[in-house]
Amino acid sequence: MEHNTQKQSAVPMRGMRDLLPSEVALRQAVIAKIKTVYTSYGFSEIETPIVERSELLNTGEGGDNEKQTFGIMRRGLSLKDIKETDAQHDLVDGGLRFDLTVPLTRYYANNHAQLPSPAKVFQIGSVFRAERPQKGRYRQFTQCDIDIIGEESTIAERELLLATTDVLASIGFEGFTVRINDRRILKGIAYSCGYTEGELETVFIIIDKLDKVGLDGVATELSEKSSQPETVEKMMHFLRNISTQTDNTALLNLMPAEVDTDAITQLTEIIDSVEKLSASDCTVVFDPTLVRGMGYYTGPIFEITDKDFPGSIAGGGRYDKMIGKYLSSDVPACGFSIGFERIMSLLEERGSTLVHKQSKRAVLYDAAVVPTDFALSLTQQLRAENPGVTSLHKRKKNMKNQLNELTEAGYTSYCLLESEQVSPEFKDIG
Amino acid sequence: MEHNTQKQSAVPMRGMRDLLPSEVALRQAVIAKIKTVYTSYGFSEIETPIVERSELLNTGEGGDNEKQTFGIMRRGLSLKDIKETDAQHDLVDGGLRFDLTVPLTRYYANNHAQLPSPAKVFQIGSVFRAERPQKGRYRQFTQCDIDIIGEESTIAERELLLATTDVLASIGFEGFTVRINDRRILKGIAYSCGYTEGELETVFIIIDKLDKVGLDGVATELSEKSSQPETVEKMMHFLRNISTQTDNTALLNLMPAEVDTDAITQLTEIIDSVEKLSASDCTVVFDPTLVRGMGYYTGPIFEITDKDFPGSIAGGGRYDKMIGKYLSSDVPACGFSIGFERIMSLLEERGSTLVHKQSKRAVLYDAAVVPTDFALSLTQQLRAENPGVTSLHKRKKNMKNQLNELTEAGYTSYCLLESEQVSPEFKDIG
Repeated sequence: MEHNTQKQSAVPMRGMRDLLPSEVALRQAVIAKIKTVYTSYGFSEIETPIVERSELLNTGEGGDNEKQTFGIMRRGLSLKDIKETDAQHDLVDGGLRFDLTVPLTRYYANNHAQLPSPAKVFQIGSVFRAERPQKGRYRQFTQCDIDIIGEESTIAERELLLATTDVLASIGFEGFTVRINDRRILKGIAYSCGYTEGELETVFIIIDKLDKVGLDGVATELSEKSSQPETVEKMMHFLRNISTQTDNTALLNLMPAEVDTDAITQLTEIIDSVEKLSASDCTVVFDPTLVRGMGYYTGPIFEITDKDFPGSIAGGGRYDKMIGKYLSSDVPACGFSIGFERIMSLLEERGSTLVHKQSKRAVLYDAAVVPTDFALSLTQQLRAENPGVTSLHKRKKNMKNQLNELTEAGYTSYCLLESEQVSPEFKDIG
Repeated sequence: MEHNTQKQSAVPMRGMRDLLPSEVALRQAVIAKIKTVYTSYGFSEIETPIVERSELLNTGEGGDNEKQTFGIMRRGLSLKDIKETDAQHDLVDGGLRFDLTVPLTRYYANNHAQLPSPAKVFQIGSVFRAERPQKGRYRQFTQCDIDIIGEESTIAERELLLATTDVLASIGFEGFTVRINDRRILKGIAYSCGYTEGELETVFIIIDKLDKVGLDGVATELSEKSSQPETVEKMMHFLRNISTQTDNTALLNLMPAEVDTDAITQLTEIIDSVEKLSASDCTVVFDPTLVRGMGYYTGPIFEITDKDFPGSIAGGGRYDKMIGKYLSSDVPACGFSIGFERIMSLLEERGSTLVHKQSKRAVLYDAAVVPTDFALSLTQQLRAENPGVTSLHKRKKNMKNQLNELTEAGYTSYCLLESEQVSPEFKDIG
């Protein structure tokens, strides 16, 4: 049979990827650890759909992620409808979720009558963003979120941080850094320099780039976007002042009077708790320049960074005003998201031993002399006698190659059936 | 705060659903069982992306499912592009997978160099079909597929059937029926009646409705679609003849001479194996009118039906010509898909006990007198001493209600901290 002239491409869609058995095995091992820890803290797993209504994904609060939403074409459109449309978004009525937080707020509003209060939940699932594909970045990737909904005190932040640092320790991370700030602190700083409410978002976006562009870069950008040189000067003075300070208490004392005192008290509570109680050996750092991209945060925000990875490996914060959009009153909420793909790439680099090494036995049979039903039946018996894997394989002509292939697939022993023998002997491979 | 005037809807998109913690717990318990059994047979888990290129989802071989594909709007289209389009499909470059088989064939072609031969793999994931939503039918649902790729003999069919009947037994199914046929048998029957190759698909679609419309209904539809009364008459004679026969061997003897003898031999092998070796108490039935909707099947096809459910709870077959579309030669392949949602609805109706009952302890603390850090720290200690769940909760004013809520969430015991006591006593709830 000849197909060459019409061969189809077998590559995945741009930015999507296939996962090989060894990759899936490590991912599943990590997911099992995450679930065990979160469950032990009393968090329950929930699921939200992958497709959400367009209006939910286009509120303006999802930051850049909203622009990267994959749109689902409305069903039942005629070509006439399409030619007559005056707005592209009329052709689209749904989209693939770009994070798990936006769907969670809808979920809570839809199901709160059937959930305890506060609700402690976690979600592990695929999210989609039409980012420019690049090494290690895909358009479908896994996120892993925990959230506490209905708790206004910092017990929520503290539990989320303790549970997540516990998760990271359980999968082999150590020496990571928890960076904490509060949106109210950022606002107080900006106001103290003379910025107005309308300028906050722009200023935060620039400050967020401090790690990448440095103090001079921030100064340049702030000047370009601001008409008041003395406001920029005040902000730069403040940023230079705090840049030399690494002690959390000293830094807190540098906060201007315009900063909400509740924010300072709560931040201190959270930092103390995590420093004292985390089962991991993490360092907790107050970082007044931490911004986090989403518009929906209202209070404490936090990130975890690892020395081996630029950017964060987990991030979250409080979003007390999101659920109220669906209900008649606001519901306090706080969440933390592990960057699962970043965790995975670090674990793969380091050579993780998380995948449980189970017994894997291969039963090879010579199909020319041993009936398949005999081999199937014997393999069933052997499987019942031994936990783990007992897999049946036709013996190939080149058995040495076949054993190599089995070793690569994680098999550790084999037996060879050359007659209807009922008690074959397993030998180690290799 | 007043939101009523602008309240957003919190319902999921049409046909999509939210899953509550108890639903997720049962689903995860079933998935764990499925994975354990398939893994013990030597199948490895793989993952394919949820979004595939449009051309892959529109080959014509996916049957009705192709018409129900959700299309992903091409990125970067201008309104001008849209108004000038002459074909709706130009606006769409991807789609949500409607099954796991089509993506698997692409996956195998893309990754075969890194997979053993034969490759024994399984996939558990979401698929999407824009079906008319109705009770118990959703537009996103889970499928669970196993496939053997690279094995041309019936050892593939036999292993798939043994493993899948094993899975069903392990999650509590019994007395189900395995129905088997072969596309080559269907063809032979049609040819023996005088149908031509071009008529096969139409005839198969009509015969597929036998369960729903009965012999008379089939006769009517065949007459409407066929210009040759004697052909219809022959087919109806054959169908009436086999309808009274329930013995597999007797039925096989009724097959016309036009039927491929290999097909008969192989079907007999498969039936014998499953009858003799399945660990479940299933019944194996040769059903010469079994069709299965997909155009891609080339040999044996099979379905599992349960007395409590109309339609099938699992289905599959051999598709030897699909992978060749991507490669320079054909690769034999055979797969089996469990209708996960149907399984779930049956288990929920029957009241499954699959969810592992773990110890769930609640630590209640009076936040007015006990510092949160003390409560957090003590709970950590208690958690470390005891496997399962140990969850911290602020004591509510109405503790009776709170305990009821905890019972509903599966908690079995609690302790109450009213001071900084270090060894609280757990009491049973209720």
